[in-house]
Amino acid sequence: MSAIPAYAAADWGTTSFRAWACSADGTVLGERRGPDGLTSATERGFETVLEGHLAALGLPDGAPAMMCGMVGSRTGWIEAAYLDTPIGLDGLAAQATRVPGTRRPVFILPGLAQRSATEPDVMRGEETQLLGVVADGYRTGFVCMPGTHSKWVRLEDGSIDAFSSFMTGELFQHLRTASILRQAVEGAEGVDPALPAFAEAVRDVLAEPALLTSRLFQIRAGWLLAGRSSDEQLARLSGTLIGMEIAGAKARYGDLTGAALLASGPIAQLYETAFALAGFGAFHPLDADRCVRHGLHTAAASLFDLNPTGSPS
Amino acid sequence: MSAIPAYAAADWGTTSFRAWACSADGTVLGERRGPDGLTSATERGFETVLEGHLAALGLPDGAPAMMCGMVGSRTGWIEAAYLDTPIGLDGLAAQATRVPGTRRPVFILPGLAQRSATEPDVMRGEETQLLGVVADGYRTGFVCMPGTHSKWVRLEDGSIDAFSSFMTGELFQHLRTASILRQAVEGAEGVDPALPAFAEAVRDVLAEPALLTSRLFQIRAGWLLAGRSSDEQLARLSGTLIGMEIAGAKARYGDLTGAALLASGPIAQLYETAFALAGFGAFHPLDADRCVRHGLHTAAASLFDLNPTGSPS
Repeated sequence: MSAIPAYAAADWGTTSFRAWACSADGTVLGERRGPDGLTSATERGFETVLEGHLAALGLPDGAPAMMCGMVGSRTGWIEAAYLDTPIGLDGLAAQATRVPGTRRPVFILPGLAQRSATEPDVMRGEETQLLGVVADGYRTGFVCMPGTHSKWVRLEDGSIDAFSSFMTGELFQHLRTASILRQAVEGAEGVDPALPAFAEAVRDVLAEPALLTSRLFQIRAGWLLAGRSSDEQLARLSGTLIGMEIAGAKARYGDLTGAALLASGPIAQLYETAFALAGFGAFHPLDADRCVRHGLHTAAASLFDLNPTGSPS
Repeated sequence: MSAIPAYAAADWGTTSFRAWACSADGTVLGERRGPDGLTSATERGFETVLEGHLAALGLPDGAPAMMCGMVGSRTGWIEAAYLDTPIGLDGLAAQATRVPGTRRPVFILPGLAQRSATEPDVMRGEETQLLGVVADGYRTGFVCMPGTHSKWVRLEDGSIDAFSSFMTGELFQHLRTASILRQAVEGAEGVDPALPAFAEAVRDVLAEPALLTSRLFQIRAGWLLAGRSSDEQLARLSGTLIGMEIAGAKARYGDLTGAALLASGPIAQLYETAFALAGFGAFHPLDADRCVRHGLHTAAASLFDLNPTGSPS
């Protein structure tokens, strides 16, 4: 294994940037994370931002970069295609869009589109994680991918059969910071899934999803009237929205026992707790970081002529 | 009837101000409406803003003002009490809070609190509209009050028995202007309830409320994939949120046939259409402006010594 990176992998989203310098066999040699989301990159220039990170990672000139995420959206660097579902993931890399005019080969993987009159949906970035999930051997079942726009995906023998997005994370951020609920949750630092309020909120919304927008207002009312703490009310907000997402996935797909949960860090704990409250007998934990790196490596290995014995420059 | 106003009535909310100069019998002699919500009033001074409007209305020095709404909240001019439900509305005016130190008598009517561990809720302003509703003779049944935080209220022989708030209007404004859906609805001027997309959205969310946050994301997906127009997608957003509110009210209260709809203008049409789609056999339309004026007059007449034959100054 050479210590000189053979390629870079990057997951570039609306509000975050993560890149890894990798050897030809996918071993991670270095990592960069930053808040360089699309808005700031649009101002500073996408190639400037990317090359700054790749220089810090010691990526040789000419070594290629494989990217996924909202960088390939209409409001990103360049629009990468949407491939239609149902779809097997084998051909994903072959459909990557090469960014024109860059110093080094830079590719953006396509997103996926569910072109349904009644259930239109899109994803960008998650398809690459799913490529890693399938490469890891989880080929049939449901995958829950928490996030700004959480995805629930039905895999059938390694193919993406159907999926649904839920605005869970975006609504949480908005309601927490800019809504009438702001004062009720101000000062809370994070969501503690061990608080009874989290479990109560999950149970309430699972029992009666129709009351969602009333339950949200009650977070303010409970603060005004009962002096409930901001920690308690933030847990309630999180439990309400995560519970709603699970209620929606159950309504759409039925029994979700054994679903894979693709998450890392604190958010994984929240969903694990909610899964248990929803009565899922068991679930299959997957590390989100590992899956996206695995997916990007799978794509890079299929598209690039990586040279494991020397510098690719 | 004297042409000199005997008192002023005002409904002062988070984002709007409405005031009327009235004769002793409640006849409206003049009206002012403005965007002087609480935030701008906090900066300029509540009394300065109020007196500016009352001068323009020709209210004599010393004539009293009766107000309701968020001006009486913790973040308003001065905090007025919350009265606990269940409650008859006869004693509302007697519990009004007098603002200290003003040139003229200025009173703010109390809000209502539902101090329930499982269904905590509050209202400020709507109780005054309900005072008008009951004074108008609608004493038993459900009242739907659309707004930033819509209320559904159960009246029992003139008393407020139970109520629920829904964040319909606030979510609509946020999702329309500051969310991932913004581009999909940009350029649409208003919601047309005659568009099939409005009815589809109401029906979809009534059929499966659990999918709300997925239906919201689909508004973006339908714009990206199917090129649906912004008018169509804005109607879909509105129908989704109004339908969700009705689904919630049904889940909480059961059969709502014959409910009173307290609304004015375009929003009344949206709710009328949604009520029909929800299968309400009939509903009882009430004019929101008229009800709040009637409620404020009822309170003013009970609290102030109005002199119908001369100037009260």
